[in-house]
Amino acid sequence: MKRIGVLTTGGDAPGMNAAIRSIVRYATYRNLEVMGVFRGFWGLINEELKQFGPRNVSGIINLGGTILKTARCPEFMTEEGQQRAYEVIKKYGIDGLIIIGGDGSCRAAHRFYLNYKLPCICIAASIDNDINGVDATIGSDTAVNTALSAIDNIRDTVTSMERIFVIEVMGRESGFIALQVALAAGCEDVIIPEREFDLERMCHDIVNGNIRGKVSWIIVTAEGAAKAEDIAEKIIERTSLETRVVILGHIQRGGSPTAFSRILAIRLGREAVDLLLKRDSDKVVGLVDGGIKAIDLEFAIQKKKIETEEIYQLVRILT
Amino acid sequence: MKRIGVLTTGGDAPGMNAAIRSIVRYATYRNLEVMGVFRGFWGLINEELKQFGPRNVSGIINLGGTILKTARCPEFMTEEGQQRAYEVIKKYGIDGLIIIGGDGSCRAAHRFYLNYKLPCICIAASIDNDINGVDATIGSDTAVNTALSAIDNIRDTVTSMERIFVIEVMGRESGFIALQVALAAGCEDVIIPEREFDLERMCHDIVNGNIRGKVSWIIVTAEGAAKAEDIAEKIIERTSLETRVVILGHIQRGGSPTAFSRILAIRLGREAVDLLLKRDSDKVVGLVDGGIKAIDLEFAIQKKKIETEEIYQLVRILT
Amino acid sequence: MKRIGVLTTGGDAPGMNAAIRSIVRYATYRNLEVMGVFRGFWGLINEELKQFGPRNVSGIINLGGTILKTARCPEFMTEEGQQRAYEVIKKYGIDGLIIIGGDGSCRAAHRFYLNYKLPCICIAASIDNDINGVDATIGSDTAVNTALSAIDNIRDTVTSMERIFVIEVMGRESGFIALQVALAAGCEDVIIPEREFDLERMCHDIVNGNIRGKVSWIIVTAEGAAKAEDIAEKIIERTSLETRVVILGHIQRGGSPTAFSRILAIRLGREAVDLLLKRDSDKVVGLVDGGIKAIDLEFAIQKKKIETEEIYQLVRILT
Amino acid sequence: MKRIGVLTTGGDAPGMNAAIRSIVRYATYRNLEVMGVFRGFWGLINEELKQFGPRNVSGIINLGGTILKTARCPEFMTEEGQQRAYEVIKKYGIDGLIIIGGDGSCRAAHRFYLNYKLPCICIAASIDNDINGVDATIGSDTAVNTALSAIDNIRDTVTSMERIFVIEVMGRESGFIALQVALAAGCEDVIIPEREFDLERMCHDIVNGNIRGKVSWIIVTAEGAAKAEDIAEKIIERTSLETRVVILGHIQRGGSPTAFSRILAIRLGREAVDLLLKRDSDKVVGLVDGGIKAIDLEFAIQKKKIETEEIYQLVRILT
Repeated sequence: MKRIGVLTTGGDAPGMNAAIRSIVRYATYRNLEVMGVFRGFWGLINEELKQFGPRNVSGIINLGGTILKTARCPEFMTEEGQQRAYEVIKKYGIDGLIIIGGDGSCRAAHRFYLNYKLPCICIAASIDNDINGVDATIGSDTAVNTALSAIDNIRDTVTSMERIFVIEVMGRESGFIALQVALAAGCEDVIIPEREFDLERMCHDIVNGNIRGKVSWIIVTAEGAAKAEDIAEKIIERTSLETRVVILGHIQRGGSPTAFSRILAIRLGREAVDLLLKRDSDKVVGLVDGGIKAIDLEFAIQKKKIETEEIYQLVRILT
Repeated sequence: MKRIGVLTTGGDAPGMNAAIRSIVRYATYRNLEVMGVFRGFWGLINEELKQFGPRNVSGIINLGGTILKTARCPEFMTEEGQQRAYEVIKKYGIDGLIIIGGDGSCRAAHRFYLNYKLPCICIAASIDNDINGVDATIGSDTAVNTALSAIDNIRDTVTSMERIFVIEVMGRESGFIALQVALAAGCEDVIIPEREFDLERMCHDIVNGNIRGKVSWIIVTAEGAAKAEDIAEKIIERTSLETRVVILGHIQRGGSPTAFSRILAIRLGREAVDLLLKRDSDKVVGLVDGGIKAIDLEFAIQKKKIETEEIYQLVRILT
Repeated sequence: MKRIGVLTTGGDAPGMNAAIRSIVRYATYRNLEVMGVFRGFWGLINEELKQFGPRNVSGIINLGGTILKTARCPEFMTEEGQQRAYEVIKKYGIDGLIIIGGDGSCRAAHRFYLNYKLPCICIAASIDNDINGVDATIGSDTAVNTALSAIDNIRDTVTSMERIFVIEVMGRESGFIALQVALAAGCEDVIIPEREFDLERMCHDIVNGNIRGKVSWIIVTAEGAAKAEDIAEKIIERTSLETRVVILGHIQRGGSPTAFSRILAIRLGREAVDLLLKRDSDKVVGLVDGGIKAIDLEFAIQKKKIETEEIYQLVRILT
Repeated sequence: MKRIGVLTTGGDAPGMNAAIRSIVRYATYRNLEVMGVFRGFWGLINEELKQFGPRNVSGIINLGGTILKTARCPEFMTEEGQQRAYEVIKKYGIDGLIIIGGDGSCRAAHRFYLNYKLPCICIAASIDNDINGVDATIGSDTAVNTALSAIDNIRDTVTSMERIFVIEVMGRESGFIALQVALAAGCEDVIIPEREFDLERMCHDIVNGNIRGKVSWIIVTAEGAAKAEDIAEKIIERTSLETRVVILGHIQRGGSPTAFSRILAIRLGREAVDLLLKRDSDKVVGLVDGGIKAIDLEFAIQKKKIETEEIYQLVRILT
């Protein structure tokens, strides 16, 4: 193992830059050369690579986004695309690859490994925290805190105007952000893809609350579970109460990473390099039970199982 | 003048609480009694008042929203509603009224004054900065900074993914927030109600930029000028480039007020009390040419004239 | 178990209010009455208690500090003080006690339990993360993020002025905050109570770095390991380079709690109530290996063992 | 006027980068070439210059500090130093100079102009807001907000622990930051260089307050008026009450600039270029009565007169 490549794919997540910095500097310390690949797999296929030394990653530890940029690459889903990528890897003398990204990236990496057996380690980075078997991904803590402080802001108006608000957070297949912020912001209800949701029961609660004098409500919904607009429309239909919608959207994706996201990124970067040096492969590194662990990609790409019961019940009981 | 009333109306704005605290404590210092009226004019009509002393406004200087709450009150638009409000004012021995709110509040206060001649001072508070003749209202600086930090966050993704984003900010009749954040965040273009906008020219710029290698764009639009969804749709139609939408919405309304919003609120609160003590009336206090001034409501409720040329040209030139 | 008491002791930590809210509401849900005790053990001895219902803990989830306040109480260290506290507990019909605080609080609670056998559960809350066997305490994540954003700020000046800065963070016996922020902020060196520190080696590194053109340094020190002033003085003595000092101090203790601190607080509050209901006692609840666990106070009050090697080496290697 | 130089001197202030970006891009738009000078006057003397185009100032609008860096330069205080700087200016064909900095920078620029008559415009940038005749400098609004949010944090502990805190903020000859944050944070007292301070009166107030049950105090002091340590010592001596000290220090200097600081920086940058194009010189541009104005350096370098009475009285009355 003399030279490794590193790339970021999928949606950007805060802490990706801290991971890149860690990989480049730690790999250099371990006498490896590092090639930065721009725009994910697209950059592999289109030969957008540059050698990275410790100086190239100065002053990025606190920046959101990714200096390596990221892009969609449907071509890499094809045999020809993968073949082309493999040729570029060989041409540049790259002996192992570190892929920083979410579950889509893990799937692509696994397929690529099966075909070409190139040593390949993924680093779990995704604001959705959507990788099976992993407790926390790079960026998820930051995204939750960004959404939380947005909801804290909205709470000022909710309380001053005494209204119902439905707030849509990110999470196409994962209720992670929604559950976390609903509990942390003291929201009244939460709708996630992992659970059935009884809208009639909620509207009933709202009407009953209204009678008792409870006039301010915040309902959080994960984009993959229900659109805020639809929920609001139904609440208005059933309760005739004024209801507003906020879609937090892309503000959740950026921003300076929290300490948790940075430290996780740094430690995962180091671990990925160590695994490549041991010629380990086809794994993703992430936080598991409070420690850094490597998980087989085969397992990691399965539909994530998460325990939602405890948090969901707490949201309901505490409001 | 022995006893004054204070209320907040219209949309809440960060700094309203700092103004309430200032009014209550300064009025007490000037030997006035203060009645807090809850839920704006609705609370006048429905007799929701409470005497406020210095202790009642402890620990609120840094909170967004308004502890007096705010509500719509169509009834106050009628003769009967105003008559009823005036009776409550007399019943509680209130000699003067301080109304904290935006341009709608100024209009209501002016009409009320013309009918009943009760000493009445408005305090300019509105995130939109929409009061004619006033340079800055309570909350406008906070709203601009909240929107700015949201756009700074989004910029991380814009740069990492190399896409076009259309961001919709608040401002139904005012391009204030849009102009300020577009300049402060280094955005590529801005659409406001006060100016004609040439969408064809913008799409042309985007395509030309794309040819030269400029791939990341942020376009800010004030909600009253154009919906982000519509703009994005047209950009996609004309350029075929991937375009995303973010609607910042109610996060712009809340949050802990900035130093500027708090200090302005405190000074305006003091000035309003001083004017009532001088039996001045039918005015709004706000920041004018860097100082605290009182403006006739008659003038303040006219359509606001703002100079947009300098800021708009700077946005265009500097990107 | 019909009625429980709750109090906060020691230094305040962000998230204590979220814990109080969780305890009051969850206990109410489980049909317990809750007495809030003001000013820690002092309030027990001096009979400062008040019954708390769900409404008393509204709007506090996002506030730093503690609405129950906290105070030193040397009297509780004496037999007479404990006896008096126990009498008050009996007088108010309190069947179990939840104590929210750090290692000093655990020690006091353990002694009290040994003497009076009153069911007693501690909740680990302390910005220092100083409880043996516990991975994270309430407030530690917030304190690290507050210190981190302060150091990110200072980095702007460090880079612009090209100077050496020594930054002192909280941690009398614990290097937790120092280690975490040093890694997360990309600092050049870190001094903690848990490790020997070779000042000569560091000065040597600085001089060597200077020759190679590295002119900006940030050295983090935990207050319990070395005073920033002393370190700076020695650096100036040995290197003649301009060196500045910043002592972060009490800004690290306050602020709105992060999502992590809030969620941990909420879950620990629930767990403490559940344990009391099972008549479990003499334990502290905290985060262990990524989950909520209860630990014997006897073990928890021993000198905390933490692994510093991995983080410390990463700080050194990555800069 | 074909080519201009730009440099930053004195302490860094948030918004300097926004000013540099504005100057480079606006000057380019006006067909001027721009030379960036590194490390202030030192860089002039030591020939550290580089041509700057629009691309060189990408992605810096939201960053604290200065990409041109800043340094002390005692040599520029000498005839020889100025002569050398002038030679470098001629060598590089620089026809006019823009100097971004505080009052020290204005003084140096004025002297240089008197000797060499090179067109020379200063931009008022300093967290202290210390330039005579100017209402707001670049960075002052950001510094006040940073200090404010630090004090908001400390307030959590002040209230929870019921103690006296003395907080030292920046301001060697200026009480600007101290006055602003004391009012905005609702502090109990403030000590500034511009006013006599009666410590006996304050201690008397504290003791009296204590008797009435007021136990939490925050006293803000500007570093140039009194050291926090000294004030705390005297309070303890006279009142025997527990008193803590926090010195905010360099955190006030950094951080992402507020909207106000960025917009001011952008507008001042444009104005400075316009003035040079008109061959105006020996002036500083800043915010005066709410607008952008140019002031003679001769006037600007005199001891700043500020009105402290209104704000000071408000601090005292409102707590």
